[in-house]
This record gives sequence, structure tokens and C-alpha cells, in this order.
Amino acid sequence: MAQRIKLVLEYFGGGFSGWQRQEAGVTTVQSVLEEAVFRTSGETAVIHASGRTDAGVHALGQVAHFVTERDDLTPAVWRDALNAQVRPHPVSVLLATRADDDFHARFSAKQRHYEYRILNRRAPATWQRGMVWHVIKPLDLSAMQQAAAHLLGQHDFSTFRAAFCQAKSPIRTLQELEIAAGDEMITLRFMAPSFLYHQVRNMVGTLTLVGHGRWQPDDVLTALQAKDRGRGGPTAPPEGLVFLKASY
Amino acid sequence: MAQRIKLVLEYFGGGFSGWQRQEAGVTTVQSVLEEAVFRTSGETAVIHASGRTDAGVHALGQVAHFVTERDDLTPAVWRDALNAQVRPHPVSVLLATRADDDFHARFSAKQRHYEYRILNRRAPATWQRGMVWHVIKPLDLSAMQQAAAHLLGQHDFSTFRAAFCQAKSPIRTLQELEIAAGDEMITLRFMAPSFLYHQVRNMVGTLTLVGHGRWQPDDVLTALQAKDRGRGGPTAPPEGLVFLKASY
Repeated sequence: MAQRIKLVLEYFGGGFSGWQRQEAGVTTVQSVLEEAVFRTSGETAVIHASGRTDAGVHALGQVAHFVTERDDLTPAVWRDALNAQVRPHPVSVLLATRADDDFHARFSAKQRHYEYRILNRRAPATWQRGMVWHVIKPLDLSAMQQAAAHLLGQHDFSTFRAAFCQAKSPIRTLQELEIAAGDEMITLRFMAPSFLYHQVRNMVGTLTLVGHGRWQPDDVLTALQAKDRGRGGPTAPPEGLVFLKASY
Repeated sequence: MAQRIKLVLEYFGGGFSGWQRQEAGVTTVQSVLEEAVFRTSGETAVIHASGRTDAGVHALGQVAHFVTERDDLTPAVWRDALNAQVRPHPVSVLLATRADDDFHARFSAKQRHYEYRILNRRAPATWQRGMVWHVIKPLDLSAMQQAAAHLLGQHDFSTFRAAFCQAKSPIRTLQELEIAAGDEMITLRFMAPSFLYHQVRNMVGTLTLVGHGRWQPDDVLTALQAKDRGRGGPTAPPEGLVFLKASY
């Protein structure tokens, strides 16, 4: 009997051209994992993810699933086999469990959680190179927090939607946007049932304009209400973005 | 008039063959920084560090100093110039300040602080690859803490001293050894006026034997009292070790 395996994945986005399988020879998280399934069981499975992250975007708790006909392999065996087969790519199966037949990593997800990390200091990153957005000029946390409040709730997010976004509707509900500052790191946490393409990075880029005093907090509301990508701020780079988890 | 510049440095150890300058063509933190000084001012300065870290060992707050005849360059100018010149190597000058004439990064340091990080989980590291020691088998934190207590204080640390250590005396005073566990990460913090060569990594390797139940906590005391490197545990790998700071 076929079994459905749910995976929780961690990966370093800098090692991949994004989640989604592309033409042969392009290293993506999906293609590396599907190849690992093939080497393990000989099956050409499709692996579905809760969020199809872009090139450079990381994951600490991406959720994915696939279906296998091999009922002799337990989820724990799958976890270890996949971890052996994905080497040397920087992706790791943290957890593999058996899922119900109606579970779908993408369509069953109730919320997605993202984090965006800005290293806000003069000195370049060393350890965290490729894992943060390095912003030299100091950011005004309180102004960014005021601006962020305008983005919470249900809105038409066209201002923060990439031109090539394929979603049918630009309406999304942002349930959480928290901005916290550590010693040198500013962390923005986002939660929503789903996001438009580049929505998080476009919101971060816009909030950064506020943090630098080039925009007032209320300018974010004006931009949101314009429903026009041309009125939003720039797209923050992918390396600061982390897919934290999906809730079901 | 000559001025003495004190630097606080961050670096990713994986990018260097250790701190110390070697023959030409070998990339070390010291050689990269000295080359950056030369490109900035034309001077062939020697840069002294508080702790000469090994290949693969990281720093979050290494302290170093050098002397320059250029009194027209402020410490802030030095910081930015060095950060520009060290590119693309993963080392960063966090802080540059003027120091007194009798300040010496190595000889004036009163304490060195190190941290060793063990990723204790089944799945391989992705993000933190090269920044942690990945140990699959679960470690018994409480047993390690009991064992660690034997190492605190002043002792002859010959059991934990690398054969090629050049220190005159094997006597050292370990003032702090704290072991804490997060979700998947075990962190060991060490503080002492100074350490023998490989002392921290040899202590970590030995404590790991206790964590795995192969040694009892008291076996560490027996090993310490033997004053014989042959009686100590293995040397933990460099990538888990971070030079946190030096106190003056």
C-alpha cells in the first residue's frame, strides 16, 4: 500500500536555485530531494512543499510531502536514507513521519511563518554572510514598527506583489508582523495563511525606507492603498529571508 | 607620532588557515589584515592578536593591535579602510580605537573567553555547516556538567595539552566552564587567563566521552591527575570553536 511521507526540512538557500525543480542541471531543493528519493527506492516521486522558496531563501522548518509505494521503508528509514543521498547539498531532513492520505504540504497548510533578518551595523558580515541582509545605515526600529501596523489584517497587497506573481487574488491576511532588535540584528517575523510572490521581501524593503527616514510610517499606508507595485519600496534581497514553519 | 590601534575582529574560521602568518600564498587572518594595512598606508605592520586561533576556529570578538606612523588616519578611518581592503575574505573589523602605548593585545589580556558549539541531533547541519561540531548520538548534559566541575580551578593541564604546545608551563587556571543546552545545540563556555594549545578542544573531546557514557564523570579527574596527553580524550574539531572575547 502506498504511504504518504511528511518531511520537515532545513536548508541553506545559498546552495540552491530555489525550491522548485527547473531544467536538468539546475540544483534546486526539490530536484535534490526527488533525486534522493529515486536513489533510495527507484521511484520518481514529486515532492510538494508548503512554500516554494526563491533562490537564496533559507528554511528552518519547511514542510514537504511525497507518496511512496514502498511500505517496507519506515519514515525513520526515509529520513536517514534521504539525508545520506542529498549529500553534499546543504539540505537536511529533520523529521519524517507518516501523514494521512488527505494531507498536502501546500494545500493543507493553515499558516506560513517567515523571518527576515537584517544585520544593521557598519562592519560587513563574516559568519552570517549569505544568511542576513547587511544594512549599514542605522534603522529606526520604532518608526518601522509604526509603519508595520498599517500592513496587519486583510488587504489588497498589490503594492507588494511581484509582477510575475501567479496568484488569482492580491487579497491576503497578514496575521502577524513583529519587529524586534537584538544587539546588531533586526528581526521581522511574518505570519499569514499565505503570501503573494515576493510579498515579504517587498514589505521588508519598504519598511527599510521608513527605518532610514526616507518615508514616514504613514507613507506605507498610502502605498498600500495605491494597490500599485510602482508605489512600493524595493525588494529586499533573498538571503535575509527564512521560511520558519508551516502550521496545519 | 606613532599611534597604536586596537581592533575588535569577527571572522569565519573556515575561510582561513588560522590566525598566524605563514609562508606566502597561505591565507591567514593575520596575513590578510597585514596586507590590508599595507594597502591602506604602505606600512608593513605586525598585527598581534589576543589569541592565535587555529585553522577553522572562528572569532566573534578577537582583539588585535598594530602600530602605525600615520597620525592623520583616525581609528574610524582605519576600520573602514581595513574592511574595504580585506574583501572578499570573511573577516570584519567591528571596532577600531586608539590604545595606550603600553597596550598589547596578547600580553595585556587578563582573560580569554571561548565558546564551543555542538549540534547534537541526527540530521546533518545545513546553515551551521562549518560553524558547529555535528554529534549524532545524544549527549548526557548532566554527566558532562559533573565532569566539567573537575576541570575548574588551577591544575596541571598536561592531559589536555597538544604535543606541540610551546607554553613553558602546563599549569593553567580555568575560571569558568559552563555547559548549556538549547533545542539541539550544546554550548560550552570557557574562561581563563590563558589556555594551552588545543586545551579547549581537548577538554571538549574528553567531555563528549562522558556525554556518551563511555567515561564516568570521575574518569575526567583521573585523566587530569595523570598529567599525560595519552590519557585524555580526542581533540574536538576546530569548526565548533569560537573566540568570544578578551578582557583587559
